[in-house]
Amino acid sequence: MRIDVLSLFPDMFTPLTQSIIGKALERELLQFNVVDFRDYSHDKHHHVDDTPYGGGAGMLLRPEPIFEAMDALDAAAPGPRRVILLDPAGRKFDHVAAKELAQESHLVFICGHYEGYDERIRSLVTDEFSIGDFVLTGGELPAMMMIDATVRFLPGVLGNAESAATDSFENGLLNYPEYTRPASYRDMDVPFVLQNGDHGKIARWRLKESLRRTLQRRPDLLADVTLDKDGQKLLREVRGEEAGRLADCEREDE
Amino acid sequence: MRIDVLSLFPDMFTPLTQSIIGKALERELLQFNVVDFRDYSHDKHHHVDDTPYGGGAGMLLRPEPIFEAMDALDAAAPGPRRVILLDPAGRKFDHVAAKELAQESHLVFICGHYEGYDERIRSLVTDEFSIGDFVLTGGELPAMMMIDATVRFLPGVLGNAESAATDSFENGLLNYPEYTRPASYRDMDVPFVLQNGDHGKIARWRLKESLRRTLQRRPDLLADVTLDKDGQKLLREVRGEEAGRLADCEREDE
Repeated sequence: MRIDVLSLFPDMFTPLTQSIIGKALERELLQFNVVDFRDYSHDKHHHVDDTPYGGGAGMLLRPEPIFEAMDALDAAAPGPRRVILLDPAGRKFDHVAAKELAQESHLVFICGHYEGYDERIRSLVTDEFSIGDFVLTGGELPAMMMIDATVRFLPGVLGNAESAATDSFENGLLNYPEYTRPASYRDMDVPFVLQNGDHGKIARWRLKESLRRTLQRRPDLLADVTLDKDGQKLLREVRGEEAGRLADCEREDE
Repeated sequence: MRIDVLSLFPDMFTPLTQSIIGKALERELLQFNVVDFRDYSHDKHHHVDDTPYGGGAGMLLRPEPIFEAMDALDAAAPGPRRVILLDPAGRKFDHVAAKELAQESHLVFICGHYEGYDERIRSLVTDEFSIGDFVLTGGELPAMMMIDATVRFLPGVLGNAESAATDSFENGLLNYPEYTRPASYRDMDVPFVLQNGDHGKIARWRLKESLRRTLQRRPDLLADVTLDKDGQKLLREVRGEEAGRLADCEREDE
């Protein structure tokens, strides 16, 4: 896969190479390139922004530097690609989108900055993604996040030990609670079932706690999950226990 | 405001100081501190992780380094604070949460890494936030994003020219299309209304296009918006135009 990023702050991407991206680069699974589109400014002061038509506060990115940076990419890496703009109006980025983007051979991220960008820049874009309903100084951080989440799905990037298969969302449920040493720390103990080595019991406990956490925190996810007979039984148990706990709390409140 | 981050990759936060955080630091509106909790490892090899109880792939963060880094923070900066963990099971981070966190005097972010962390670490936490339904290598990027979105709301951080008040979400609607020079670029023209300087007409055009984009892309947001009489009229117009366009498309498809 090839990833190009158009940004006015190319240094912001340096730490990404410490992370999963570093491994993907080492293993030659990824070509990663950041273009400072200020290099395509027409202005002797290297300005890339200008005041908005119709008035208003703030400065907008002019179209030319981005269009011409894209022309240069066309020449350097012709062929199909997805051109991604980060925008609060875009499609919500999620696990499914990350897997989808990991199938592509070439991704280009355009990072806005300043208060906004000229609307015509959208004509270059194939996909608009949003990270959430909040406003950031620039598109750099969400682009880095999307790249991190996507590159994890490239074959060969994660070792077996880090397999994405046990991550939250992979089976449609939130992850179960996990524990490591020490067995007891500041009066908090690792649950006994995890310490005694019965793999069947451990697997059932984990599925049950995964169901419990999903039921407590993200019950919407349960609608899309397919459970076998034992899974359905565990879900009924958890529902019963949680209902009981709620009733206990209410009694205590009285 | 004081922000502390507990991370194994403190260098990842360097670029943040180039951004809005840099301005907040210069203006002494923010104290920002990254703690490498590997410094609190008990192990001569500075390991902070260990294998999970009950088996399974991957390594988990042990509780001690994080608990002891928090003890040190207790001593250095006593007083109330929110301790934030990034977790896919957490409350969705959004514009409202950013404003809420901007009211606090002290925020602490705990960034997980490796495949997960010992469940007991959650006992230190006051708030779990999620950035979305996807999995990342670590909590650093979402922490940086939350910090960026939050610090924007500290009084004095954004200048007038960058005022957060015109951002998307601030009036509950997506932003209208914006244009800057040149008036014509690669056969794409700036809408005439924005070029002729009639401020009343421009304001109405902007509200209408804001309503149109919100209707097209995030109709869910319209439920929470209060419009005056003229706004309601514009929304009816937009609904009519969009319905007409849809009918035209369907006719063309026949």
